[in-house]
Amino acid sequence: MALSRIGVLTSGGDAPGMNSAIRAVVRTAASIGVDATGIVGGYDGLVNGAFRRLDVRDVGDILHRGGTILHTARNAEMHTSKGPRAAMRNLNANGIDALVVIGGDGSLAGAHALAAEGVQVVGIPASIDNDISGTAMALGADTALNTICETVDKLRDTASSHQRAFLVETMGRECGYLAIQAGLACGAEIVIVPELDMTLDEVGDVIEAAYARGKTHAFVLVAEGAKLAIQDVAAHLGSHDIGFEPRITILGHVQRGGSPTAFDRLLASRFGVVAVEALADGGTDVMTGLSAQEVVLVPLAEVVAGNRRPSMLAYDVMRRLAR
Amino acid sequence: MALSRIGVLTSGGDAPGMNSAIRAVVRTAASIGVDATGIVGGYDGLVNGAFRRLDVRDVGDILHRGGTILHTARNAEMHTSKGPRAAMRNLNANGIDALVVIGGDGSLAGAHALAAEGVQVVGIPASIDNDISGTAMALGADTALNTICETVDKLRDTASSHQRAFLVETMGRECGYLAIQAGLACGAEIVIVPELDMTLDEVGDVIEAAYARGKTHAFVLVAEGAKLAIQDVAAHLGSHDIGFEPRITILGHVQRGGSPTAFDRLLASRFGVVAVEALADGGTDVMTGLSAQEVVLVPLAEVVAGNRRPSMLAYDVMRRLAR
Amino acid sequence: MALSRIGVLTSGGDAPGMNSAIRAVVRTAASIGVDATGIVGGYDGLVNGAFRRLDVRDVGDILHRGGTILHTARNAEMHTSKGPRAAMRNLNANGIDALVVIGGDGSLAGAHALAAEGVQVVGIPASIDNDISGTAMALGADTALNTICETVDKLRDTASSHQRAFLVETMGRECGYLAIQAGLACGAEIVIVPELDMTLDEVGDVIEAAYARGKTHAFVLVAEGAKLAIQDVAAHLGSHDIGFEPRITILGHVQRGGSPTAFDRLLASRFGVVAVEALADGGTDVMTGLSAQEVVLVPLAEVVAGNRRPSMLAYDVMRRLAR
Amino acid sequence: MALSRIGVLTSGGDAPGMNSAIRAVVRTAASIGVDATGIVGGYDGLVNGAFRRLDVRDVGDILHRGGTILHTARNAEMHTSKGPRAAMRNLNANGIDALVVIGGDGSLAGAHALAAEGVQVVGIPASIDNDISGTAMALGADTALNTICETVDKLRDTASSHQRAFLVETMGRECGYLAIQAGLACGAEIVIVPELDMTLDEVGDVIEAAYARGKTHAFVLVAEGAKLAIQDVAAHLGSHDIGFEPRITILGHVQRGGSPTAFDRLLASRFGVVAVEALADGGTDVMTGLSAQEVVLVPLAEVVAGNRRPSMLAYDVMRRLAR
Repeated sequence: MALSRIGVLTSGGDAPGMNSAIRAVVRTAASIGVDATGIVGGYDGLVNGAFRRLDVRDVGDILHRGGTILHTARNAEMHTSKGPRAAMRNLNANGIDALVVIGGDGSLAGAHALAAEGVQVVGIPASIDNDISGTAMALGADTALNTICETVDKLRDTASSHQRAFLVETMGRECGYLAIQAGLACGAEIVIVPELDMTLDEVGDVIEAAYARGKTHAFVLVAEGAKLAIQDVAAHLGSHDIGFEPRITILGHVQRGGSPTAFDRLLASRFGVVAVEALADGGTDVMTGLSAQEVVLVPLAEVVAGNRRPSMLAYDVMRRLAR
Repeated sequence: MALSRIGVLTSGGDAPGMNSAIRAVVRTAASIGVDATGIVGGYDGLVNGAFRRLDVRDVGDILHRGGTILHTARNAEMHTSKGPRAAMRNLNANGIDALVVIGGDGSLAGAHALAAEGVQVVGIPASIDNDISGTAMALGADTALNTICETVDKLRDTASSHQRAFLVETMGRECGYLAIQAGLACGAEIVIVPELDMTLDEVGDVIEAAYARGKTHAFVLVAEGAKLAIQDVAAHLGSHDIGFEPRITILGHVQRGGSPTAFDRLLASRFGVVAVEALADGGTDVMTGLSAQEVVLVPLAEVVAGNRRPSMLAYDVMRRLAR
Repeated sequence: MALSRIGVLTSGGDAPGMNSAIRAVVRTAASIGVDATGIVGGYDGLVNGAFRRLDVRDVGDILHRGGTILHTARNAEMHTSKGPRAAMRNLNANGIDALVVIGGDGSLAGAHALAAEGVQVVGIPASIDNDISGTAMALGADTALNTICETVDKLRDTASSHQRAFLVETMGRECGYLAIQAGLACGAEIVIVPELDMTLDEVGDVIEAAYARGKTHAFVLVAEGAKLAIQDVAAHLGSHDIGFEPRITILGHVQRGGSPTAFDRLLASRFGVVAVEALADGGTDVMTGLSAQEVVLVPLAEVVAGNRRPSMLAYDVMRRLAR
Repeated sequence: MALSRIGVLTSGGDAPGMNSAIRAVVRTAASIGVDATGIVGGYDGLVNGAFRRLDVRDVGDILHRGGTILHTARNAEMHTSKGPRAAMRNLNANGIDALVVIGGDGSLAGAHALAAEGVQVVGIPASIDNDISGTAMALGADTALNTICETVDKLRDTASSHQRAFLVETMGRECGYLAIQAGLACGAEIVIVPELDMTLDEVGDVIEAAYARGKTHAFVLVAEGAKLAIQDVAAHLGSHDIGFEPRITILGHVQRGGSPTAFDRLLASRFGVVAVEALADGGTDVMTGLSAQEVVLVPLAEVVAGNRRPSMLAYDVMRRLAR
């Protein structure tokens, strides 16, 4: 049976590029004669029937905007049998044949669960932490990384005027991806991430050594989920005479905002095209992924089972170049 | 006696525009046949003799850079008689006839003390808090304000996707200028500043009312010196069911960084020209100030005695437009 | 008779800050129990009856956006008697008691003509060229200036790598304000503006002298309305051996875009409040203006009769510091 | 024989990320006990002996800066036998055992020629046009793309206020990469590039169709080397009644400037590490390249012989989503 209407939703933590992906989904659908419905508020909207028709004009002027016009939320019912059942009923009632789910790990697990119930669904990975198996890059990570870099660049201006150790807390509850990549991109001395065990004394030694080498300042990036809390690191550096005075910046949700970078817009556009084409070809229970420079389809079962840890390569390069 | 060499130093917290002012001082001096010497590390460098000749090429390519090429520091000895004495000795030893001091309240008080000892000195006000008497604007405040706005704009992207109350801590230990102005410029619901007494319940009521009016998010700007700490405000909002979930961003020294805005570059250039002209005219113990659209000279005695509090006008307008 | 509904329109070339002003007008009106109607497409919409009710939620999330949600256009009929008559008819038919007009010189002349016909009207000055009499700053000029600075800063990066003379065309058909201010803010060697007569040889001499002084690059800002065209300047510099190779950048409408700066948001908010208060007090045929740090009301007759030329002070300072 | 000193130069058009690569080369060398010398002004400096020692502190604070601290130039003598001979002599005289060349196509051809003369040399690809065979991405392309996007985003603000067709000229004399990728990333209607034959009427039809579909504005990106000149396209659109008024922006060298993006900093850092490791392993006549997510070594002979044309995939996606 041919597709006649697809639904699209964004779920979980929002990420720059979600709007670009929504636009691509709606317009690719239009290009093959398929209508689109936006589901407002993620799975919550799916379960509660918050639906809204989206035509090609409705997704004009959103390609470059942060956030998501479809909002996002977390819904506990999706993990029970009740959620998927209500979801299916709403999809049927609205004449929606298939679904595109844009979101992170949990959202893609939800999509996999829906597929098990018989919903035709394709996922698009979006996560500023870039912690999703099956794709080299998830939407939003490139933008978040650039946001962190711009912030550290501003700190650098003032760092040149005083002798300071700047501690910057990045997002990443279970994943140090942003802190590690930004550590290399910003020339940090060290990063503190969930993936590495580190003591306060080890951190202090690195910073003290940087001071001894004649550096005028030092940057330390701390993932929010690291075992050492940023306040404790600051207190340690402050109380030991390591040469630099510590100062704290906590970026918070700033990292989820901002206009998506060119990379995120391009990736989102390609993901959106491939997702709709996959649905048109009868595909289901898969996710779009970036592999080398190609967009491929990856079974959601593999994505959900996977456990993506950030590469430590950037960490090693950062440590090597911090001299 | 005609001037033959002037010294220039930056002192206290650094502010965007300091480099633009240094460039203007050095090149204006050159335009009237006067040489310039940079004093490295503020009053500390003055007392300890960290001097460096600056010619017109040395200040090329710095007009647009944050921080200060002359670094800055605080020096306790300036408040004793020992400091000014050592300073004078160093100025004489280096053939420096007069001094330009770029900095905030404390730095200008130091300049006033030097003038009392017989040093010919003109001050240039620089303070992101804009808390200096005798000038409508101090260097750096316009840039810092724009930095805060850019950050809040990014939060706004993600705020549209979730229902959140974002708490943003701005600089300002004793002065709520940045929080108040940014509150209006960013459309905050409320700001929490040292100048206003406010209880946690009052803040909660304002946020809850915004939620009831149908707002999709709320911003609260908190000056670091406010009587209510940002963590306590977040805890209060989190524990009372006010509709929005609170999230914290602490900008820290990011506000001191960044390339100066056009306004700060223009003001710094004009301040630099007038400061050197004042010295050439035999002026001393004065500060350049912005009054209406003119740059004027204000006695340092008045500046030091003054107690500038931020206008509450912007606060009232903010509250009125937050609906 | 008390106000019950005011109309607001934006007209002429758009300027960053127009949206901030619309928001302030609508919400200030709401704060005194007055409704608001947006008129879409400037005077064109006024004459043709393109009206749209605006409540406080409709102007949410626009404070920081470039452009104008009410669009803008030029309408020839306003200069005949037919235009104002149709306008009045439409205002009456929609129960609109008074009008706020946000725009430049021509738009404010239109407002003055409407006032002569008996419409209660207050103007808000908006012009990136800052060429409106009666106000120290018009909306949009500060943002446009910063946009130019950011662009020149990027050119500077690459200028340090090659020996180049960069020619940058700024907006300004009859007014060199942007070129002059940006010239000082960006450290240009020279600016070419309608207000100054200059020959190609004079420009060439200035650039050649900069080369001889050892500069690694030179910037020339050219207002689009200058008597020398940017292509001719480039050809002249290219054909004479002045040391630097010329390269052209034409910014165009980029200067009208971008999120308004803090200054433009604050000024727009204050202008909006005062405009509505003036209407509520029975004021008409006046414009809000910035005088020193205060917002004042200026008769539109004076604004229209005035002929504002940019100060040459910044030009003189630029030439003095370009060494 | 073990390496004791390596030279590094940047050549050809500068690209954001060159400084990050210089830093990585110098510090990786230091990490294995090898000294570094910077060659100033590209091959010109190599032939004329403009050498400068670089230690780890000399490359501090440059990771995030646009341009190149080593400057760049084109040198005609490299294409004769005289150039390489003088180069070898200078390398020997300065005790330089091996060379890293950072640049584009022509610069890498020069490196290949040096290798043929017996110089141990590794290339690092840098080109905002991304037109170098053997690597998925060259340094600078990601930054240039984002610069174009930021500019078009600003035009979009003002485009929403008027009905306009904005024509934006991007760099790319022989390669439409930037125009094509930016066309998709910015939601252009059409791009005009050297790789595609297109008539003025075809462009007019596309823009007219966009107008008919109800679009409020249209963007056309034109590579500087396209067969249709941007002025001719504007004249055509202006003289035919296609609904939108055309406006021109010429970005010029702005695209070479700006702080490198996170992507370019990370890639440059990895390229620098691998280049020095390759030299330490005795490698020569190769270039670092990005293949999938890995950095690999590619023979310069292949790079020089290759002819990289931009993928038309992004073009097809752009056309499909422009509705």
